[in-house]
Formats: sequence, C-alpha cells, structure tokens
Amino acid sequence: MNAAILCVGTELVTGVVRDVNASFLIEKLLRKGIFPKWVSFVPDEVEEIADSVRFFIERKADFLFVVGGLGPTADDLTREGIAKAVGRPLHFSEEAWKNICCFYSRIRGIEPPENNKRQALLPEGALLIPNEVGTAPAFVLEGRPKIFAFPGVPREVEFFWHNLEKEIPDVPSEMYRSATLKFCGIGESQLEEQIRPLLLALPRNLRFSFLPNYGEVWFFLYGHKVSSEEITKGEEILESIKSTFSSYLFSQYGETLEEAVGKMLLEQGLRIALAESCTGGLVGSRITDVPGSSRYFERGYIVYSNQAKITDLGVPEDILNRFGAVSEETAQYLAEGVRRKAQTDIGLGITGIAGPGGGTLEKPVGLVYIGVSDGTKTVVRRFQFGGDRLMNKRFFAQAALTTLFVFLKERHKNG
Amino acid sequence: MNAAILCVGTELVTGVVRDVNASFLIEKLLRKGIFPKWVSFVPDEVEEIADSVRFFIERKADFLFVVGGLGPTADDLTREGIAKAVGRPLHFSEEAWKNICCFYSRIRGIEPPENNKRQALLPEGALLIPNEVGTAPAFVLEGRPKIFAFPGVPREVEFFWHNLEKEIPDVPSEMYRSATLKFCGIGESQLEEQIRPLLLALPRNLRFSFLPNYGEVWFFLYGHKVSSEEITKGEEILESIKSTFSSYLFSQYGETLEEAVGKMLLEQGLRIALAESCTGGLVGSRITDVPGSSRYFERGYIVYSNQAKITDLGVPEDILNRFGAVSEETAQYLAEGVRRKAQTDIGLGITGIAGPGGGTLEKPVGLVYIGVSDGTKTVVRRFQFGGDRLMNKRFFAQAALTTLFVFLKERHKNG
Repeated sequence: MNAAILCVGTELVTGVVRDVNASFLIEKLLRKGIFPKWVSFVPDEVEEIADSVRFFIERKADFLFVVGGLGPTADDLTREGIAKAVGRPLHFSEEAWKNICCFYSRIRGIEPPENNKRQALLPEGALLIPNEVGTAPAFVLEGRPKIFAFPGVPREVEFFWHNLEKEIPDVPSEMYRSATLKFCGIGESQLEEQIRPLLLALPRNLRFSFLPNYGEVWFFLYGHKVSSEEITKGEEILESIKSTFSSYLFSQYGETLEEAVGKMLLEQGLRIALAESCTGGLVGSRITDVPGSSRYFERGYIVYSNQAKITDLGVPEDILNRFGAVSEETAQYLAEGVRRKAQTDIGLGITGIAGPGGGTLEKPVGLVYIGVSDGTKTVVRRFQFGGDRLMNKRFFAQAALTTLFVFLKERHKNG
Repeated sequence: MNAAILCVGTELVTGVVRDVNASFLIEKLLRKGIFPKWVSFVPDEVEEIADSVRFFIERKADFLFVVGGLGPTADDLTREGIAKAVGRPLHFSEEAWKNICCFYSRIRGIEPPENNKRQALLPEGALLIPNEVGTAPAFVLEGRPKIFAFPGVPREVEFFWHNLEKEIPDVPSEMYRSATLKFCGIGESQLEEQIRPLLLALPRNLRFSFLPNYGEVWFFLYGHKVSSEEITKGEEILESIKSTFSSYLFSQYGETLEEAVGKMLLEQGLRIALAESCTGGLVGSRITDVPGSSRYFERGYIVYSNQAKITDLGVPEDILNRFGAVSEETAQYLAEGVRRKAQTDIGLGITGIAGPGGGTLEKPVGLVYIGVSDGTKTVVRRFQFGGDRLMNKRFFAQAALTTLFVFLKERHKNG
C-alpha cells in the first residue's frame, strides 16, 4: 500500500518555513509498512491544490494526506481545492461550527470571530473530525485515495494522526525498517569503521544508514519487499552491533539521550542539580522535557554572570580571576558547588564560549568544559566545537548529557 | 516565471535523508525572482518519475529541475523517466563516457566500472554538461519546461547550479515578497479580522499570508508578476498595518521574539533575572540564544522543586501550601523574589503544569502563570494551553516572552 502527502502553504515553497509535517507523516506511515510514495508541496492556490489532488487520484494512491490550508483566513484554500478536485460542493457544517465555538469559549473565553465560519465548510460527504487542540477541524473523504485533510499546525497534525491512525492498516511486511540504534560518545566514522566488518553479512535487499545527529550517531537497517529470512539475518547483525557497542548505545526504541540519562538516574536512585553558564538553561530544558523528571531533577542555576557563579554557587572569585570563567577549574567548582548547594547526589556544571564574541586564541569560540561530581569523584571533560552560537549551545548541551551518561554508566559498572 | 523541482530518491520519501537540494534550489530561484511553484519528491521508479515530469509539462512550468537518480546503479532511473515523459530515446554519449573515464583516472587512478556506462546515456537532443566534482553528468533539455537534470549529491547540485544559472533569467520584479511582520499577544483570527478592512485596498495581483507560529502570527504580502505601482500600494498597506498594530508588532526583518525583547531591555537599560519552574530553563535558553545577551541577562533559577522555590527565591512555604506552586500568588513571588535575589531591574517568574501528569480539574495540564515585576509594578497573567508536555513547554516559554514584551512596551510608553 502507498500514500501521498500534499503539504499546502506558500511559506513551504518560498522557504519561510521548513517542513516538519511531511517528515512526521513519513515516519508514521513507514512504521505501518505503508510506502509514502509521493511527497509534494504547493502554494496556497486553489488550482494548484486541486491539480495535485487530481494527480494522486489518477495515480490511484491508497491514502492521501493533505496538510495545511485549513485555517480561518482567506488564504487557507485546501477545502476549496479538494472540493474542486473531487467534484463535490462545500457545505457548512453546523456540528463543526459548534465545536469551533466550544473551543473558543473553553480556551479563550470568547466567541469565535466571524471569519472562523470558513473552517466549518466541508466537502459534501466528508466525515468531520473535531479538533481538540485547535480550531480547524480535519475531515476524511472515503474513496481512492482515501483523503485525510489535516490543519498544518504540527501539534494538530500529531493530534489527528493519533486520532485517525486506526483507519490506516498495518502492513508491516512490505516495508522494513529496523529499530534505530542511537550511540553517543563515539564519532560517526569511528563507529562506522568498527561496524563495517559486521555489515559484510548483510542480505542483499537490506540497506543500512548511519546518521550523525548533533554528537549522536543513529544507525538502522531498511529495505523494501524484504523476505522474513532477510529480516531475521538483519536483526541478528543488529544484535551483534548492540552487544559490541553497548557502552555507547543509549537508545533503541526512540528514547532521547535525556530520557536515557533520566532512566539511569532513577535506577541508581540519584537526584541531580545543574549549574549552566553558556547553555543558558538548555540542559535543564532538555532534562525536564522528560515526563516525571521531577523525581530526579531538583533544580538548576543559570549562572550567566560571574556574580551569579560566586554568590549562588560559591565559585571562588580567585578561581575566576586566575583561570577564567571558562576553565577546567570553574567547571569543577560549578559541579561540586551546585551539588552542595542543592544537596543532591549529582552536580553537573557547564561553562563555555558559545560565540560569536568572547573567544581568544587560547580559548576559542566553541570551547566548553563539562564537570560532573557525585561527591567522591569529579570528572571534567573538555570539548571543542566549531559551529555558530546556536549550534554550539546545542553541541554543548549534548556534550553535557553525554558526559553525564558516560559518568553514570561507569558509576553503575563500578558498583 | 515559475519552476518545478522534482527530487528523485526512495531515501527522500522514506525519511532516511532529509532534503537539502530542494531547499537550496528554492532559495536560488527566489533570488532570481522565479516562483518555485511545485516541489515534489518521488521514489526511484521510472513510472513515477515520468508521470511527474508529464504533470509539470502539462502545467506549463517554465523550468523543471529533476534532481537525483543519475548515479551508476540500477536504481538510478531519472534518465529513463525523463526520456519516457518527453518521448525521446536514450543515446549513449561518447563524450559523456570520455568525461567519466577522465574523472575516474584523475581522482581514483582506475578505469570506471562497467555499470558507469549507464551514466553516459542521455535523452536524444539533450545538452551534456560535464561534471567536474563527480561522475554523473547533468543534462539540459530545451522546451517548455526547460528541463535541467542534476545528480543528487548536494555539492554537485551546487556545482551545476553555478554552471547553469546563467541560463535562467533574472526577473527580480516578477516575484515580490514583502517583509514578514511578526506579531505576538494577539490571535490569528482576531488580527485578521482587524486587518481585513485594510486589505480591501490590496492590488489584485498581491496576496497575503497569515501564519500562526506558536503564539506568534506572521504576516506578509507576496505576488507573482506584480507591477511596481502594485508593490508601492502593497507597501503602503503594510505601513498602515504596522502603525495600527504596533503594540503587537515585534519583528519585521526576521528578528525573533527573544531578540526583540533583548533589544527593548538594552534600550531601556534594564537587566533581567528569571525564575523558571515548568519551563525548566527553556526561557533562559531562548534569551541566551541572542548574541550579547549577557548585557541584559543576569542569571536564572530553575526552581523545579518546591524546596528550591523556598530556599533560593524566598517564596513563603505558606503561599505554596495555601495557593499551590502553580498559582497567581506563586508567580508573583517568583517574579519579585528573583528580582530581589539577583538585584536586577526586572524579574520574570513562570510556573505551570506541562503535563502529562499533575493536572487537576481546577488546575488542568496546560495552565501557566507568568509574573513580571520591575519593583514598582508586578503583572501576573494566566494562560491555558492544550498541548502535550513539549508543546506546553514551548507555549509557556512563548507566553513568558510575550508577557515580558507587552510589559516592556507598556513601561516604555508610560515613561
């Protein structure tokens, strides 16, 4: 079975916004074994939308997802485009309008503006799917392809997918994709060089992919129309990769690094506090992205100024003067200081130069020191990255979580 | 003039590789004033490639870029797909083969493998464009659309673009796009309803786009084949929108909300400190995404636990017990407490329930209180969102920056 994804929005074809919805749907469809054979982007124009829908009808796609262009404004033309392509008029749905009014009064405490009425228009025969996280309803049109029209706000796409995925069959045998193994603390080429001998036995129809991802390396196998013998062989190879590289492996079922670290903290019964300088709160934000993180995350200090480092965490002024705010010594004091201050088991300290300013020959932009302490042992690691400010912040946060991961792994191994 | 971009590759529609080539071409085409009206991705299948090419021929696109699928292996089928669509046979080009052989001996010091001969096939009448950075030659087919077939390796796409862009006219007046006005603190429909009367005077060829973006609304005008009179008229309308909605307008040249807020703090000579609970550091991270933010950002406290709220910022235990950690009162104490503790001009406090757990009937998941204080005045605002944990965190951070923006705007207006 196959599917087409049609994303509607002038912003998508003029580079204002980068697509996330098509990527989301591609991944979900693949998990169901459905091949997302066509992915297209068109501007907010009735003719273009209608033409593309007709194209997928002619191609006999099994499913068509039309995403975006269901908003209340006059440039939201997906309803009109689909109606035109399938040759059905638009009707005003009282039920849709009632839902929109409910959403408005619940969230905003007001009546919806008059122009929201456009959102209650549906092609004749379409099944209305109420929106619980926004105003625009989705709709489904039976036929070949079965058409799903979703609003383009990413969380609404997710909402409707979860609501409607039961209407899309699971056909796992057609498209195979293995679990994604995620590694940290090892470089892509190093990992590939070591894994490559294991891949010599890979069946013909299976392919592999290494994806570097901000200091992580992701690896998976995939293939189209793969036999079950080939899959079994592939899975055996994956198992041997997993056991050979277990010290770097933090995820195989989609977990993020912050989830993996959170799980280790919980399992080891540890609470943690953070002292962040150059990352400005990014590490805290990632750690608290995990539901239930309050069970192990106590608090964080964003000690951006030197004054904050001194008064909040007791970093000696002398250390800052002698070695600088970005130094091994400061990272150590931050990790140990925050651990003491917050009375936690683990303290994590991060200090670096995100740029673009603030670098010197000796301490260039992209330099970061990460300290981790458990009261008996403090480890400080130094990393040098070469991105712009936002990239560096992202790499720094990743390096902090990686250092913590390795520290906890070691600590666990040693008893 | 318009263009279509057709990216060929099963890896693109199966989520293994994220597109960069279409994004590259979109940007280059827009700079030339050419509207990239269609962007499509298809797998490595002759029929799909041919069908899509035919679609763009029928749509009378001016230019068609077919990217990818020109490699030496059996799944590289772009040559066959284009030949089929335009009804011309493939011919073996001695010249192409000579170039491939030269490249091989120069770079690898060997003869090319036999399967590379496929790369020397060209549709009859196509103009060969030698590849200096890889093996696959590109080709150009005159007609409507004028077809450019490029190999899919990003640096080869760049190479061929630079080689061939002279064949694509510069029509800077043809594609117009205004600056993007970004608003916060006002909903999309509300804004549109109020802007609509101003849009009645919009010239016929100009269109507008409203884009909701996590609590922001982006607005711009665009059009294809717009006269300079129409552009002047459009810009006048933009000016009147800007002055009418100046209290909500924070950006017109691409600035982010955190940049706009940072600029206001600098201009007003204010330093700020943060007390974040549910956002876990996300607001601090966004504020410090801005280079030079150390000039106004002093520090932040991620007071995740109640203990942290009490010991670090002096929120009275009694307040937490009586009103709860997520309450107007706590938000007020956080804003005022962090301002005092860090000795800054402004304090910003955020407390809410990101979910999925922790909600009650009275205080559901998605509820957040934002407090801002400047020592003489403290404002607390309540927001209710309806997303999952990550969405809520994102909305909370956005609401915090919006509340701060409105506070600073008011403060500036009043003296």
